[in-house]
Amino acid sequence: MTFSALTPVFVAIICVLIGIIWNSSKKKVKEEPSRTSKKEESRPWVDEDLKDSTDLHIEEDDDGEWQGLDNNIEHIPFSPERYSEEDMIKRSKEFYELLNKRRSVRFISDEPVPREVIDNVIKTAGTSPSGAHTEPWTFVVVQDAEMKHKIREIIEEEEEINYKKRMGERWVTDLKRLRTNWIKEYLDTAPYLILIFKQVYGKLPDGKKKTHYYNEISVSIACGILLTALQNVGLVTVTSTPLNCGPRLRLLLGRPVNEKLLLLLPVGYPTKNATVPDLTRKPLDDIMVVI
Amino acid sequence: MTFSALTPVFVAIICVLIGIIWNSSKKKVKEEPSRTSKKEESRPWVDEDLKDSTDLHIEEDDDGEWQGLDNNIEHIPFSPERYSEEDMIKRSKEFYELLNKRRSVRFISDEPVPREVIDNVIKTAGTSPSGAHTEPWTFVVVQDAEMKHKIREIIEEEEEINYKKRMGERWVTDLKRLRTNWIKEYLDTAPYLILIFKQVYGKLPDGKKKTHYYNEISVSIACGILLTALQNVGLVTVTSTPLNCGPRLRLLLGRPVNEKLLLLLPVGYPTKNATVPDLTRKPLDDIMVVI
Repeated sequence: MTFSALTPVFVAIICVLIGIIWNSSKKKVKEEPSRTSKKEESRPWVDEDLKDSTDLHIEEDDDGEWQGLDNNIEHIPFSPERYSEEDMIKRSKEFYELLNKRRSVRFISDEPVPREVIDNVIKTAGTSPSGAHTEPWTFVVVQDAEMKHKIREIIEEEEEINYKKRMGERWVTDLKRLRTNWIKEYLDTAPYLILIFKQVYGKLPDGKKKTHYYNEISVSIACGILLTALQNVGLVTVTSTPLNCGPRLRLLLGRPVNEKLLLLLPVGYPTKNATVPDLTRKPLDDIMVVI
Repeated sequence: MTFSALTPVFVAIICVLIGIIWNSSKKKVKEEPSRTSKKEESRPWVDEDLKDSTDLHIEEDDDGEWQGLDNNIEHIPFSPERYSEEDMIKRSKEFYELLNKRRSVRFISDEPVPREVIDNVIKTAGTSPSGAHTEPWTFVVVQDAEMKHKIREIIEEEEEINYKKRMGERWVTDLKRLRTNWIKEYLDTAPYLILIFKQVYGKLPDGKKKTHYYNEISVSIACGILLTALQNVGLVTVTSTPLNCGPRLRLLLGRPVNEKLLLLLPVGYPTKNATVPDLTRKPLDDIMVVI
């Protein structure tokens, strides 16, 4: 009796609730339609990667300075090389001139490059500071032709989808101006592809996860050092961030789940007819403010 | 009649629905209790900063390669310096040895450093590649003693709160081992503080916002180049990420809202009795995989 008297009220409530749920679930789907819809069947690992939010909470854990964390670590005296003021000015100027000649180059020759040089530039990148001295980087150097081609196939497949479907209209317009497309020949021709992975967490001896504070910033800084080391030996590269390919490339290269692809650098000499866009850089006054 | 017969079913459904909604809303609140609860009263700008999610959607907008975006830009031939293989090996080894001597140093002398050197190292950082050649960095160089002290006050105030309240127990234990605390004398003594801001968006001529693709990675790469330039002239620094200070420091330095503090580098010579923790770096085999 009581129930049946209230029935219309219940019906109304149900309608409202269904409406709310329907709306909120529709909104969620709408936010990333291209991602969820296309990948659920064929590439589940892509979704898994997108759900990874390790970087979103980084700001909570920080010691400000990036010191190391070894137990009761000894502190030792430090006195680095000291140059005269004249030398400092000269060295800083020459280093600027060397680095200012660096350009991102998409035309990479298949001419071989000594492995020792690659070893040295990666060792150099490994001198980068990192949050809590976690050194959260893995440099995967691919020289095998077949593996390079598999990487190219994955990247071109995803890039084509990016260009055609995922990118906003404005961005596609921007790219047209650059005559860029999704064909990346250098992935076959470059003697080395360096895939830079960030380790979003590590493992403690007891098997627990160890947070890698600021892993993305740390690995990007290491990449900046790597770029200077490459420029210093006359090799070229193009800094690239393969969109949506990370999980597939991680699996292809057999990297563990705590590693995420951050950057891919094809490395070699430029081809003889290499070109670069005629860009300029901002003058010092536009990038520096002195107080 | 039909309705009243179904009433128990409706009641059951309503209970389930209310339960689901209640649970999901409770979960959302639970996820970030420390952020919302503590900061709302006293430091509204902190919340504002934390809410900034410019970096979270970066992966959606990407051209893979970081090329520039000028309209119909000309492409010009490019042929960089070419070294012999012997020279390349020698140069790469020497550069590694130079960079491997770099250490993060907290003991910075107040001895003056030529401004020209600072100009040159920042010009060098400005040669970094950036997503779509947006060059999304601002280097604020603080040499004014009073301003340096104000920066120190803000950072120490926030750091003390971090240490005492915000940090997890494990992280505080980690820091104890390092004898680090929130006193940062170098913020007063270093002749220069370089505050590196990322421009999360720019402005188009028509006043619309222009997305800065991969601004954080780009600025971190520029910082890596800056670190090599500093090491090349014998100056020291410590890479730091002042937690929760970004908005206050941005206001103090009069930077616009599209700029977020990413890193702070105090720069100078080390003091005579400077020490560093006796850390080692991972060997090449631990950071490089060759395929």
